[in-house]
Amino acid sequence: MKNDSAKLKLAYIGGGSRGWAWNLMKDLALTDNLSGTVDLYDIDYSAAVDNELIGNSINKNYPNAGKWTYRAVKEIGEALTGADFVIISILPATFEEMRVDVHAPEKYGIYQAVGDTTGPGGVIRSLRTIPMYEYIANAIKKYSPNAWVINYTNPMAVCTNTLYKVFPEIKAFGCCHEVFGTQKILAAALEEFAGIKDVERDEIKVNVIGINHFTWLTSAHYKNIDLMPLYKKYAEKYIYVETEAVKDDNWMNNVFRNCNWVKYHLFLKYGIIAAAGDRHLSEFCPSAWYSKTPELVNSWKFGLTDVDWRIKDLGDRLEKSKLLKDGTEKLDLVHSGEEGVRQMQAISGLGDLVTNVNLPNRGQISNLPLGTVVETNAIFTSDTVQPVVSGAIPDSILGLVSSAAAVQDMTVEAGLQRDLDLAFKAFSADSRIQELSFKDAKSLFDEMICGTKEYLKEYFK
Amino acid sequence: MKNDSAKLKLAYIGGGSRGWAWNLMKDLALTDNLSGTVDLYDIDYSAAVDNELIGNSINKNYPNAGKWTYRAVKEIGEALTGADFVIISILPATFEEMRVDVHAPEKYGIYQAVGDTTGPGGVIRSLRTIPMYEYIANAIKKYSPNAWVINYTNPMAVCTNTLYKVFPEIKAFGCCHEVFGTQKILAAALEEFAGIKDVERDEIKVNVIGINHFTWLTSAHYKNIDLMPLYKKYAEKYIYVETEAVKDDNWMNNVFRNCNWVKYHLFLKYGIIAAAGDRHLSEFCPSAWYSKTPELVNSWKFGLTDVDWRIKDLGDRLEKSKLLKDGTEKLDLVHSGEEGVRQMQAISGLGDLVTNVNLPNRGQISNLPLGTVVETNAIFTSDTVQPVVSGAIPDSILGLVSSAAAVQDMTVEAGLQRDLDLAFKAFSADSRIQELSFKDAKSLFDEMICGTKEYLKEYFK
Amino acid sequence: MKNDSAKLKLAYIGGGSRGWAWNLMKDLALTDNLSGTVDLYDIDYSAAVDNELIGNSINKNYPNAGKWTYRAVKEIGEALTGADFVIISILPATFEEMRVDVHAPEKYGIYQAVGDTTGPGGVIRSLRTIPMYEYIANAIKKYSPNAWVINYTNPMAVCTNTLYKVFPEIKAFGCCHEVFGTQKILAAALEEFAGIKDVERDEIKVNVIGINHFTWLTSAHYKNIDLMPLYKKYAEKYIYVETEAVKDDNWMNNVFRNCNWVKYHLFLKYGIIAAAGDRHLSEFCPSAWYSKTPELVNSWKFGLTDVDWRIKDLGDRLEKSKLLKDGTEKLDLVHSGEEGVRQMQAISGLGDLVTNVNLPNRGQISNLPLGTVVETNAIFTSDTVQPVVSGAIPDSILGLVSSAAAVQDMTVEAGLQRDLDLAFKAFSADSRIQELSFKDAKSLFDEMICGTKEYLKEYFK
Amino acid sequence: MKNDSAKLKLAYIGGGSRGWAWNLMKDLALTDNLSGTVDLYDIDYSAAVDNELIGNSINKNYPNAGKWTYRAVKEIGEALTGADFVIISILPATFEEMRVDVHAPEKYGIYQAVGDTTGPGGVIRSLRTIPMYEYIANAIKKYSPNAWVINYTNPMAVCTNTLYKVFPEIKAFGCCHEVFGTQKILAAALEEFAGIKDVERDEIKVNVIGINHFTWLTSAHYKNIDLMPLYKKYAEKYIYVETEAVKDDNWMNNVFRNCNWVKYHLFLKYGIIAAAGDRHLSEFCPSAWYSKTPELVNSWKFGLTDVDWRIKDLGDRLEKSKLLKDGTEKLDLVHSGEEGVRQMQAISGLGDLVTNVNLPNRGQISNLPLGTVVETNAIFTSDTVQPVVSGAIPDSILGLVSSAAAVQDMTVEAGLQRDLDLAFKAFSADSRIQELSFKDAKSLFDEMICGTKEYLKEYFK
Repeated sequence: MKNDSAKLKLAYIGGGSRGWAWNLMKDLALTDNLSGTVDLYDIDYSAAVDNELIGNSINKNYPNAGKWTYRAVKEIGEALTGADFVIISILPATFEEMRVDVHAPEKYGIYQAVGDTTGPGGVIRSLRTIPMYEYIANAIKKYSPNAWVINYTNPMAVCTNTLYKVFPEIKAFGCCHEVFGTQKILAAALEEFAGIKDVERDEIKVNVIGINHFTWLTSAHYKNIDLMPLYKKYAEKYIYVETEAVKDDNWMNNVFRNCNWVKYHLFLKYGIIAAAGDRHLSEFCPSAWYSKTPELVNSWKFGLTDVDWRIKDLGDRLEKSKLLKDGTEKLDLVHSGEEGVRQMQAISGLGDLVTNVNLPNRGQISNLPLGTVVETNAIFTSDTVQPVVSGAIPDSILGLVSSAAAVQDMTVEAGLQRDLDLAFKAFSADSRIQELSFKDAKSLFDEMICGTKEYLKEYFK
Repeated sequence: MKNDSAKLKLAYIGGGSRGWAWNLMKDLALTDNLSGTVDLYDIDYSAAVDNELIGNSINKNYPNAGKWTYRAVKEIGEALTGADFVIISILPATFEEMRVDVHAPEKYGIYQAVGDTTGPGGVIRSLRTIPMYEYIANAIKKYSPNAWVINYTNPMAVCTNTLYKVFPEIKAFGCCHEVFGTQKILAAALEEFAGIKDVERDEIKVNVIGINHFTWLTSAHYKNIDLMPLYKKYAEKYIYVETEAVKDDNWMNNVFRNCNWVKYHLFLKYGIIAAAGDRHLSEFCPSAWYSKTPELVNSWKFGLTDVDWRIKDLGDRLEKSKLLKDGTEKLDLVHSGEEGVRQMQAISGLGDLVTNVNLPNRGQISNLPLGTVVETNAIFTSDTVQPVVSGAIPDSILGLVSSAAAVQDMTVEAGLQRDLDLAFKAFSADSRIQELSFKDAKSLFDEMICGTKEYLKEYFK
Repeated sequence: MKNDSAKLKLAYIGGGSRGWAWNLMKDLALTDNLSGTVDLYDIDYSAAVDNELIGNSINKNYPNAGKWTYRAVKEIGEALTGADFVIISILPATFEEMRVDVHAPEKYGIYQAVGDTTGPGGVIRSLRTIPMYEYIANAIKKYSPNAWVINYTNPMAVCTNTLYKVFPEIKAFGCCHEVFGTQKILAAALEEFAGIKDVERDEIKVNVIGINHFTWLTSAHYKNIDLMPLYKKYAEKYIYVETEAVKDDNWMNNVFRNCNWVKYHLFLKYGIIAAAGDRHLSEFCPSAWYSKTPELVNSWKFGLTDVDWRIKDLGDRLEKSKLLKDGTEKLDLVHSGEEGVRQMQAISGLGDLVTNVNLPNRGQISNLPLGTVVETNAIFTSDTVQPVVSGAIPDSILGLVSSAAAVQDMTVEAGLQRDLDLAFKAFSADSRIQELSFKDAKSLFDEMICGTKEYLKEYFK
Repeated sequence: MKNDSAKLKLAYIGGGSRGWAWNLMKDLALTDNLSGTVDLYDIDYSAAVDNELIGNSINKNYPNAGKWTYRAVKEIGEALTGADFVIISILPATFEEMRVDVHAPEKYGIYQAVGDTTGPGGVIRSLRTIPMYEYIANAIKKYSPNAWVINYTNPMAVCTNTLYKVFPEIKAFGCCHEVFGTQKILAAALEEFAGIKDVERDEIKVNVIGINHFTWLTSAHYKNIDLMPLYKKYAEKYIYVETEAVKDDNWMNNVFRNCNWVKYHLFLKYGIIAAAGDRHLSEFCPSAWYSKTPELVNSWKFGLTDVDWRIKDLGDRLEKSKLLKDGTEKLDLVHSGEEGVRQMQAISGLGDLVTNVNLPNRGQISNLPLGTVVETNAIFTSDTVQPVVSGAIPDSILGLVSSAAAVQDMTVEAGLQRDLDLAFKAFSADSRIQELSFKDAKSLFDEMICGTKEYLKEYFK
C-alpha cells in the first residue's frame, strides 16, 4: 500500500455496471479523506465508457465531492496494474442464462426466489462463473498481487473461494448487505419496545455466523441492552402481520421487499436470528417449509423474482444511464448503505471497522471445514482484515448449513477442473435437488447445462 | 483382565433374548479356547431363566462343546460384578412402541423399512433407549468399570454414544453385521468374474467409513486383486435383475432378504460401495430416491418390515424357546456369523482381529466431529481396540452422512437432558422430516411421543 | 448486565492492594460515563478498609471526578453478589515465598528476572495460586456467574486457565500491559524514522500472537504505514546502545526499565517483534542466550528483580498508603495506562475496543492446543469479548512457546488435583529445568516445595 | 499391483549397499511365496554390479531358496519402471561428511551417539539428504507412481517427509527396527517374571507413539498379560546393572549394544516405555541428562559411535563383499529380523500384518501437526497401509517430541527451498543447539556447513 491514504488507485472489474458502479461512485464522492482514480474494465467496453462519463460528471455537478477520476480501460491488466483495491461486480453471462437458472427447475417443483446462490440455480450459475473468476484471480496474481480485492458478485462464497483456490495469497473478501437489513429490524424492535429512536444500523452489535445468504446472528446488543428478547417480541408480534416494517430505499432491495415472516419463523424455531432476506433464506430451506408451490411462497409473503422483471429493470437502468451520461440527470449523492468505501478507509489506516465479510474459514467457525468460505465479523484495520472467532454453528441448523457449504466447495472443484460429472455430483448433493427422483435430477441438470451451454464451452473441450 | 484367557465371566444385559442370546450360546459352544460363566440379566427375569436352562442344556447335548455355565440373575449389579465382558442386546420397550416408530410416519408419506436407526423412528426409539443406556452405563461404571462392553442394540450409534457420554472411560464398542453381507457379495463377484471360489467373507479386505447402517467401503481387495472393478461389473449386471444372489441363512436376515438394487445403485452413483442392506440404506436417503411410496419401494425390490411380522416372528421364537427349554429341540451348533466371540478372543490375547466397529471418532474419520460415533475398521488385540485412520467421507455423500450423525448427537443430548424441546429440534433436523411442512412435522412428533409415552415418563417429570 | 451503563457494581478481589487498586481508582475517577460502587475484598481486611478510605477520599478531593463509592467487605460472597465486573489482583502468599521462587534456583545456575510466570518460579508460584483461583472461581460460579471477570494476577495464563477449568461458563479474561510498551517503542520508531510525532500507543495497530509474557507481533501499522521496516532500523540502531529510549512513569515499570536489547535481538533473529519486557522474555529463552550468569544478564542490560527490592518497595507503598489514608497526600489523578476501565466501558456498550487479552484458545491461534490460554487481540463490545483469528506461531519459535504452554497446562492439572508428582513432571518439562541434571532438578523442586510449604498445605493432606 | 503375488519387481535405490541389501537378499531367499527380479541402482554402479553377482549366487548356493534375479542397472528410471516395490537405503554423502555431523559439535559440548537423526548432526545430514530424496521422489513420480516405497535411510522422518512433500500421492512408508529391540526386552521381562519362555518379538503387542528414534510404547501385552508392571520390575532391577541383557546378533546392532539404562530411566521417570536404543534416545534429551560429557555418557553405559569405527566397519564389509562376490564365502541364510519382506507380502495380499512405521500424521497422533511424519502402528493388507489411531503424546514429553518434530519439518522446508537462512533457523530451534550461546550456535553451523559443502552445492547457487 502506498504511503498516502488520500491517493488511491481502484480497479473496477465489471466497471460497466449500472447499479453497483453508481453506488460506488456516490459513496466515493461522499468520502472526504480518499481520492484518486478508478479504472473501469468491462467486457462491454462501451458500458465502461458510459460509466467513465457518468463518474467524471460528478465533480462537475458537485464541486465539493471527493475527487476521483474515472477511466474506461480495454485491458484487465491495465486496470489492475498499480491498483490498491480491486472491486469485482460482474453479471456472469446474460439474463437468458439466469432465466434457465431460476425458471427451469420450476417444472420440477423447485421454486427459487433468487436462484443465484444455492439450489440448482446456484450450482449452474457457479459453473459459468468459476472460469471467469479463475481468469480474474490469475490476472490479479500477475498484475496486482498486493491489492485488496472486494467481491460483490454472487454466488458470493463460490466466487471468493475460487479467488483463493487459484491464488492462495490473494487479499480478497466478499461483501454482502443482507446482515445490514437485519440490523435495521433490530433497530426497529429497539424503538418499538424500548423507545430508543434513531439508532444507526451499525450501532447494533451482532455476532455473525454462517455462510453467505444463510447467515445467523447468535447475539445482538445496542449498548448494554440485549436485543434478543426484544427481537423475540417483535417476531412474535409481526410474524403474521402484513407490513413493510423496515423501509429501505436502496434500488436493489426495492422490488425485493418482503414481510420477514420467514426470518421471524426461523428465529422462533431456532432461537437465533436468520440474517438475510426471506427470498435468500427460503432457498436454503427444504421446499416443504416455504416454497413447495407458488401458493406456499405467497402465503409467506415473499416474492419469486422473475427474470422478466430483471430484464425490464435493466432496461430502466440503461435508460437512466443515458440520461446520466448526457447530463439530463445527475447522480443523487445519497449514501448507498454499502460498506465498501468504509472498508477501504479502514484498510488504508483511516479508522478501524468491525463488520461481516466472507472469507475462507481459518478458525472463525469451529465446526465448518477449514477453507470453506464463511461469513462472520472481521476487524478491518491498516492493511489487515482478520475474522473474529465466532463460535460453532448450532447443531439444529448444522445439517442445512454444512450440506449447502459442501455443495459449494464441490462445485468450485468441478468448475476448476471443468468436470461436468463432478458438477452433477455437486448438483445431486444439493438438498433441494435431493427432493427429486434420480431421473428428474438428471433431466433437470442436462436441461440446465444445455440451456446455458453458450457460457460453458470450456467444459466441453 | 484376569491372567487366564480360558476362564471368563460374561454379563449379558438383555439375557432373556430369543435371538442374539442363542447366537452367542452357539458361538461360545463352538469355541475351544474360552470357557466360563455367563450371567443373564433381563428385566423379564423369567426369560433369563429360560435361557439359563437352554444355555446349560448345551453341554448335556454336546459333550464336546465349549464349557460354559449360564445363570439367570435378578440384579444387574450381580451380573456385572467381576465381568470381563458385558454384552448388551435389549429391545427398548415393546413392539407396540415400535409400531409407532415404524408406521406412524407412513400417513405423512415417510416409509421406513426398519425404523430403528435414523428418520422419525430412529429419533423416537432413541429417546426411550437413552435413559436405559444411561442406567446401564452407570451400573457398569459402578460394578465393572474395567470390563469390555459389546453393544448389539439399535440405534447402534446412539446407544454407544450414550455409554461414552455417561462414562467416558468405558471400554465399549458396537457391533453390526451389515458390512459382512457386502463382503459376501464381493466374494460372489470374485467368483463370478475371476473364477475364484470358496473365499471366506473375512478374506475380503475392505476400508470402512461412515456411520452405522450408512457405511461405505472405499476399497476392497482379495489378496492382490482389486475388487472394485469386479464389483462394478457385478452391480451393472445385477442392478435390475431379480435375484437372491447372496444366500444367507441367519434367522435375522431371512425375512429381510432383498435384491441389493439400492446398494448397486448407490455404488454406480458414487463410485464407493454402500455397505448395509437396502432396507437400512434407503432410510438415510431422500424419500424421492427409493421410498416415497410403497410402490417405489417395491420397484427397488426391498421390503418394508411390518411390525406385525415382527410380532409373529417373536411368537415363533417364543414357541421355539419352549421346545428348547423342555428339551424337545436342541440348539443347532452352527456358527451365527457374528464376530462377538472372535472379538472376545482377540481382546483376551488369543489372536489379533481387524474388523468394523462403532466407536467415538478420535480421528479415524477426518471430516466428522470428534466424539460422534462412527463405523470403521479397528484392530482388536490384547485388552485393546484401536480404530484405524480411515480417511474422509467423500463430499458427495458428506451432507447425508453428517446431517444424520448430527441428528443422532443432538438426540443423545436431548435424551440425557430429558428435553423434549431439544428432541423436537433433533427430529426437525432429520432430512426426511424436513420433507414435511412444519405443521406436519410437529403433529407427527406429538403423535409419536404420545404413542410411546409409556416409555418416556422421565421426560414428563 | 443491568440496563444502565452509568451504574455499575464492581467487586475487587485483592482489594487491599497498594498498586493495582489505586490505579483502578484513578482510572475510574477519570471516566465520565461510568459510576457506581466498588466492593473491596481482601484476606487482609484492614488493607481493604484502608483502600475504602482512600477510594472515598477521591470525590472529596476532586469534586469533578467520576462518582464511585468504595466499601470494604468481609465476605467474598458479599463482594461478588450483584457484581457486573470482578477484578482480581492478588499476591499469592508473601514475599518470603516469592524469595524461594526467584532465588532458590540461582544456586543451580537458573537466574530469573521476575520468577512469576515460567521457569521454576512460575511453576511453584502456580502451585500455590491455583487452589486460590479454584476458590475464587467457585465463588464466582455461586455468587455472580454472569459477571465479567478481569484477572491481573500472575502467572496470568495459569490463573485464567484455572478460572475456566473450574467454571467453564465464566466470562473471564486476563489483562497485561506488556504489549503496550512495545507499541510505545513502535511509536518512537515512527517518530525517529518517519518524523511523525505524538502518536498514541493505541493508534499503533498490531497483530498479537503467543502466550502471556512471551507475546509476539507479526505485523504493526500506523495508519497505512508498515512499521516493520522502521522497527528493524530502530532495533539495528539501538540494540547495543545504552538508552532509556521509552520513558514510562508507571510505578510498576519504573524499577524495571531496561534497554530492550533482548527484544531487539529476538526481532533481528526471528523477524517478528517480541512484545514483552526483556525481563520476561529472557525467562522463556534458554539460559545460554541471555541469563546463564549474572554477568551475561548484565551484558544484555536488563535487571534481575531482587525480592528484597520488592519488600522495600512494598514498604514505600505502605508508607504512601498511610499518607493517602490520613489525607496528608492525595492520589494524583493521572491515567495508569491500563485498559481495565476502557474494557469495562466497551463491555457496557460504550464504544468498541480492540486490544490484547488472555483467553483460552478457541481457534485464535491455529497451532496451539484448544483450551490453552493464549494472548491475542480481541474485540470488546456489548457484553462480548471475542478473540481475533490471529494465525499460527512461526515454526522457529513454536518449540519454545508450546513447551512453555504445555508446562502451564500440566501445572494447572497438577494444582487442581493437588498432585505433587504431576507437579514435578511439569517442573521437569520446563525448558530451563531441563538444563539441570535429574538430581539437581529433584533437589531444587524439593527445596522449593519445602520452602513454600506453608502455602501448599492442601497438597500434603 | 499385478495380479500375481508370486512375481514381483523390486527396485533397490542404493543397491550397492553392503548391509541392508544383503539383509534383503537373505530375507527374500527365505520367503516361499514371492519371487521375481530386483533391479539394483546405485550411484556407485560397480557396487551394484558386485551385489548383482552376490544376489545371483544365492540360487546357485541354495537351490531351495526363493527365486530372485538380481540386475545392476545404470539409470534410476530403468530400475523404477514397472516396479511393484521400491526400497531406498542410501548413505547421503561419505563418512567424511558424517564425521562433521557427529564430531564437529563435540568441541561445543554436544556429544551425539549417532548424529544422523536429530541435533546438529541430524539437521546437517538432512540438508544434504533432502535434495537427493527430492530427486528420487520425482523419479518415482515419473517412472513408478503406483509402486510402494520403503525407506530405510536416516534421518527417517525427514526422508519420508520429503518424499510426500515432493509427490503427495506417493505410497511410501519408513521402517525402523528400534521398536523391535524393546519388544525383545519385554519378552525377556516376561520370561524373568512370569516364567514364559520363547515368546517371539512380534507376539508382544504394543501401542506405539512418537517420532522415529524417539518412540514410546503406551501399552504392552503378551496375550492377556499386561506387561507394564513386569517391565517396571525389570527396569528397576536392571537400571544400574551392567548387563547385555538382550542378545542381538544383527550386524547393525552388534557394536551398538548398550545396557538400556537410559531406556529404563526414561520409563521410571515417565511411566511409558521409551522404545529405541539408548544411543538414539539420548540425542533427543537435554545434554544435562545423559550426554553433557563423555564421562556422563559412559556412566549411563552407552557408546558414542565414532566415525572411525564406521570407516573400519565399512572396510570389513568391503572385504566381505569381495569374498562373497568371488564365491569364497556365501551368504548365511539367516533372517535379518527386518520386516520389509513381511510387509511386501502383506501388501501383496499374502496375510495381514500390524507393525510400526513412519508415515505423515493423518490423525494417528492427536496432538502433533497433520503432515508431520510420526511413528505408530499401521495395518498392512492388500495394497494398503493404514495407521492406527494411537492417541496423544503425554504432556510430560510433548515439549521434547514436538520441538524435535518441528525442527525436522522446518529442515525439510529449508532443504526443499535450498535456503540456508531457514536452515539456520531450524538448527537454532533444536533443543540441544539452544544450550549454546548465539555466537557458538552460529559458529558451529557455519563450520558444519563449510565442512560438508561438497554435498551442499545446490544451496550456494
